[in-house]
Amino acid sequence: MNETLFNKYRFFDSDPAIRNTAYELYSEIRDLPIISPHGHVDPALFVDNKPFSDPAELILIPDHYIFRLLYSQGIPLEALGIPAIDGTAVEADHHKIWQIFTDHYYLFAGTPTGIWLEHEFKEVFGISIDLNKDTAIQFYDELQEKLKLPEYLPRALFDRFNIEALSTTDAAFDTLDNHRQIQDSEWDARIIPCFRPDSVLDIGVADWSDNITRLSEISEIAIDSYSSYIRALENRRNYFKQLGAVSTDHAVVNPWTEELSMVTAEAIFIRALIGKATIEDQQRFMAHMLMEMARMSIDDGLVMQLHPGSLRNHNQVLFDRFGLDKGADIPVLTEYTRNLRNLLNRYGNDPRLTLIVFTLDESNYARELAPLAGHYPAMKLGPAWWFNDSVQGMTRFREMVTETAGIYNTVGFNDDTRAFPSIPARHDLSRRVDSNFLARLVAKHQISMTEARRMSQALAYDLVKKAYKL
Amino acid sequence: MNETLFNKYRFFDSDPAIRNTAYELYSEIRDLPIISPHGHVDPALFVDNKPFSDPAELILIPDHYIFRLLYSQGIPLEALGIPAIDGTAVEADHHKIWQIFTDHYYLFAGTPTGIWLEHEFKEVFGISIDLNKDTAIQFYDELQEKLKLPEYLPRALFDRFNIEALSTTDAAFDTLDNHRQIQDSEWDARIIPCFRPDSVLDIGVADWSDNITRLSEISEIAIDSYSSYIRALENRRNYFKQLGAVSTDHAVVNPWTEELSMVTAEAIFIRALIGKATIEDQQRFMAHMLMEMARMSIDDGLVMQLHPGSLRNHNQVLFDRFGLDKGADIPVLTEYTRNLRNLLNRYGNDPRLTLIVFTLDESNYARELAPLAGHYPAMKLGPAWWFNDSVQGMTRFREMVTETAGIYNTVGFNDDTRAFPSIPARHDLSRRVDSNFLARLVAKHQISMTEARRMSQALAYDLVKKAYKL
Amino acid sequence: MNETLFNKYRFFDSDPAIRNTAYELYSEIRDLPIISPHGHVDPALFVDNKPFSDPAELILIPDHYIFRLLYSQGIPLEALGIPAIDGTAVEADHHKIWQIFTDHYYLFAGTPTGIWLEHEFKEVFGISIDLNKDTAIQFYDELQEKLKLPEYLPRALFDRFNIEALSTTDAAFDTLDNHRQIQDSEWDARIIPCFRPDSVLDIGVADWSDNITRLSEISEIAIDSYSSYIRALENRRNYFKQLGAVSTDHAVVNPWTEELSMVTAEAIFIRALIGKATIEDQQRFMAHMLMEMARMSIDDGLVMQLHPGSLRNHNQVLFDRFGLDKGADIPVLTEYTRNLRNLLNRYGNDPRLTLIVFTLDESNYARELAPLAGHYPAMKLGPAWWFNDSVQGMTRFREMVTETAGIYNTVGFNDDTRAFPSIPARHDLSRRVDSNFLARLVAKHQISMTEARRMSQALAYDLVKKAYKL
Repeated sequence: MNETLFNKYRFFDSDPAIRNTAYELYSEIRDLPIISPHGHVDPALFVDNKPFSDPAELILIPDHYIFRLLYSQGIPLEALGIPAIDGTAVEADHHKIWQIFTDHYYLFAGTPTGIWLEHEFKEVFGISIDLNKDTAIQFYDELQEKLKLPEYLPRALFDRFNIEALSTTDAAFDTLDNHRQIQDSEWDARIIPCFRPDSVLDIGVADWSDNITRLSEISEIAIDSYSSYIRALENRRNYFKQLGAVSTDHAVVNPWTEELSMVTAEAIFIRALIGKATIEDQQRFMAHMLMEMARMSIDDGLVMQLHPGSLRNHNQVLFDRFGLDKGADIPVLTEYTRNLRNLLNRYGNDPRLTLIVFTLDESNYARELAPLAGHYPAMKLGPAWWFNDSVQGMTRFREMVTETAGIYNTVGFNDDTRAFPSIPARHDLSRRVDSNFLARLVAKHQISMTEARRMSQALAYDLVKKAYKL
Repeated sequence: MNETLFNKYRFFDSDPAIRNTAYELYSEIRDLPIISPHGHVDPALFVDNKPFSDPAELILIPDHYIFRLLYSQGIPLEALGIPAIDGTAVEADHHKIWQIFTDHYYLFAGTPTGIWLEHEFKEVFGISIDLNKDTAIQFYDELQEKLKLPEYLPRALFDRFNIEALSTTDAAFDTLDNHRQIQDSEWDARIIPCFRPDSVLDIGVADWSDNITRLSEISEIAIDSYSSYIRALENRRNYFKQLGAVSTDHAVVNPWTEELSMVTAEAIFIRALIGKATIEDQQRFMAHMLMEMARMSIDDGLVMQLHPGSLRNHNQVLFDRFGLDKGADIPVLTEYTRNLRNLLNRYGNDPRLTLIVFTLDESNYARELAPLAGHYPAMKLGPAWWFNDSVQGMTRFREMVTETAGIYNTVGFNDDTRAFPSIPARHDLSRRVDSNFLARLVAKHQISMTEARRMSQALAYDLVKKAYKL
Repeated sequence: MNETLFNKYRFFDSDPAIRNTAYELYSEIRDLPIISPHGHVDPALFVDNKPFSDPAELILIPDHYIFRLLYSQGIPLEALGIPAIDGTAVEADHHKIWQIFTDHYYLFAGTPTGIWLEHEFKEVFGISIDLNKDTAIQFYDELQEKLKLPEYLPRALFDRFNIEALSTTDAAFDTLDNHRQIQDSEWDARIIPCFRPDSVLDIGVADWSDNITRLSEISEIAIDSYSSYIRALENRRNYFKQLGAVSTDHAVVNPWTEELSMVTAEAIFIRALIGKATIEDQQRFMAHMLMEMARMSIDDGLVMQLHPGSLRNHNQVLFDRFGLDKGADIPVLTEYTRNLRNLLNRYGNDPRLTLIVFTLDESNYARELAPLAGHYPAMKLGPAWWFNDSVQGMTRFREMVTETAGIYNTVGFNDDTRAFPSIPARHDLSRRVDSNFLARLVAKHQISMTEARRMSQALAYDLVKKAYKL
């Protein structure tokens, strides 16, 4: 990959009329600060500020984008050192793991993961060796040495990455001690939490009852009724906000919204507390709680994010052995027009609400999402998500959304990553893709360069800052 | 926008091999007469032939394509002077409205609305000033002066636009007095009605009973049974046809078709008359009436248009205050293969029927619609509709349909607009996009220039004329 | 078409940076042997090795890709000589049929059928005349003469086409006598069967009971219970394997999978035997038998192919008169994430299984199929199928799949054709489209030429050989 990836025109159309304009637009926004309003970086990294342990631990083992593809080609997760939760022994020799990864590095050709990895290796860690079968161990060792240097400590990288704000994603009952410690430290970085209450809103999850106990303890509110539950949630949102949170986040398979009567909500909640809730109860309660989250967002100003349509843990065998987030979350067809109607009718006309909606179902970009975002003041579209966070995926998003919703009903880029060193790569790719998208419009005389510059600045910086109130 | 929009190569790919061919093809068809076989222009315009009142009234207030996007960014419809039906006061100062519109004109960058507006301003009205915050009022006043001139009266514009035929869309019980007056006048223009009987076919609409009364009165047929109802519909179709109609049009959320027995149809009709019809009755009756419309089309030769998949008036709050067509009609996933099966089995093999099917669900272009149109003699595909009537949207339509259905199972372009002065802009854009589509095929050596010329002429003129029997 | 189709750069993007690279990649793989692992060529062709009877019989009458489009434009199948099964007389004068076809040859402009036909005419049969209204009969007669020559006999063409392996598709109770005779002959060609048991697995087909009788007779296993039925199927799979089969194939409308208990499977099977099975029985039994086919594939190593989502024989009138495969099989929206979950959970982690999944529903490429294939070791994606086997269709497949699943979870190209002389055209087109796809990535500096070469070789030859174990 190396000989080409760092061409200055990379990811731009080769037609000079587009390429040169794309490069001009990109050059003007490439060095803008990064705002990362939604992601999964562990804040403990920045509390401890200890060196990353080793390349396998840093790059491969925690990243399901990577080991998913190796697994699809028949490489057992055990051989990659992925920790098992059922006691299965897994490979502990990280040199061996790295060699397997390298032997199959060709699998990533043409994928965004391949792009991000090359960027990390070359630009973030400054490794000049090409990664291939023969160089695997030498590469590993060189990277290992780098990780010990002060300039590769998490805080140093954060500063070098020019990150203006980074949001993590945190359970409703998280103490947020890490965030507090970072904010209390002398280090001047904006690392903020995001309120993600799925595990206390979804009465169908196995440990819901335990989660309610934890919510009760941390909020110091005895949760014995629907109304005390609501108070506890409001209490936690307030706590998150005090620690800088600007948003909430909600994952559902199906984004059904429906406001229940207090009596019904209370009845379902009580059934859930005593373990008697039905599947229908679960669905209706979640639909109701999305309404509640919108209501609370209008009260407290937290931006509401909705990530529907991922069927989590599709592979039960793997889930039983390795747990969550092992590359087996698979999208399903997702409906928005009817599902969001109740919420949008109740709260969507209120400009105090910002509801940022994501999708894994691209057939919805032009059909439902752009028309909804192009009408309701409260609704905005999140960027191309997860499997669609790629050169073609981001391009399709812009092409299918812009003509109906414009760019101003979208919210810039989210890296949504737990792989901290990949953050600059992801934002750089997004900025290049958006520059190329705008350059195509300029080359077709569909927008002027003046407009393109304004839009480019908006896509790279202004929109995300405004939408997330950062 | 101005400095680029009027480049002669606008909307063509910048690659010279494509651009030059596209321009060559376009030059040969750009001046062909406009046939507008489906749209919503008010025929009263041409009866009265009075000057358009003012720019806000002409451009902004009636056009939900425009105010939808302003509303999505938090601008209340009241501030835009959109008439309320509930007595709410709205802004009456049209200078103020125009200023708000202009202040947010940047929102339309990259949208087809932006393209159409620039075309109207520059080419239709010949305004040389650029529209921006500072020039808003000067621009308004200059346009206002133009509107008083004889050459900007509706009939003069119609003649200048080189419109060979224009179809309006009219309720089943419309008197068509406007059409009659135009046809009786000395003015030689072909402005024809289209029979749109939704409000008398859908027994679920609130005022269905009133509509039946109106249908009864105008047809002078006492409607007290299903069979008299059918006679009244046939009577009105005949009346429309006498006034030049060549088509009918039908909007449904779900295009289910099913032939009911006479007994069942009669029973449901009677229940509807006495206000006892169920939702299932409504669905089955509409499914049946689509079958009936196809049957009648074979009898009387009217082309049948089907526009499914729009969930109208999604925003109840807005609907209650402002009524229909306020930018809140949102598409839903639409199924055709199973839904149209009964109709196509019964009538689809009969070349006397022309059934033109539209969609807002692009995932259907390649999956269901092109295979159906590429098989059944009666079925043709309408052009990219509504939110898809755009540079990328029309391109996707051609790319996803042509390889399976060819171009000869499509029907050219429909502007489908109520914004009369935007008609040339819309046809010009369509002609440019189709020229570019064909030029891409030529540049790939997939078709020859001889074929491209024949196809270009077909797409711009021949297909629409033939399909609509104009 | 002629003047351009045989440009050496045909089907490549015109931008020189892409075109030249595409041509370079293509030149290196264009002459690789053809592997055709899935198709519908009649093996009897190669047993008899008799001359093809005439151009209409060879090209037009058996090819629903062609007459489908003529029929859509109002030409009766009777006029095209398509044999009726109900005794209807059809045109017998093949000159007349050919003239009609030629008069409407313009319909194929921009379609893959047009591309394949030109390739056959010019490259396979070496006809130098252009096909048009005036030359139709001369063209026919010249082609007719060619067909009598030894170099146009089926075996000679097979050898000339450089086909390394060709799989047919055969019913479970087929004797495979043709395959045996070919293999016993002195002619050295690899023509192998594929086990397609739909007609004995689907208890809902009209002649299922007869099919079971045939299965029983040929396997010499008395089928009077579910377990004897399973033994008979295993027996036949083994027989197919002995004759070189490497795969099975399964067509279903909906790919639901579910393992039934032995008791339930037995009960449904008995109900089917006595003609008492319900529609629900049918669906559950098929869901169960897909599980069984996966289980057997792990045992015997046959690759399992799944072709869901075609609603066969949509046009009942045509079906009654002309039978199967008359261009009226229409795709439907297809769900994979939930439907395949049982099968993938049970067998998808086992690398001994290769499950190749196809779709006619492109909205699934990026949403469900690429994420599934990018995770489960057993699952691979078949190439763009049927209506999507086209320039744009194959390009969309690569663009929507590669970024999530890479190319190594796909399996190269399948021509899937019954039109034997079109095989080189189809493979050539696929190789050109894939070369262009890779060249775009090179031109964007997304992959290097070294990577592109490896991927190009994989797409044209290595992947299909490996996936089908050929």
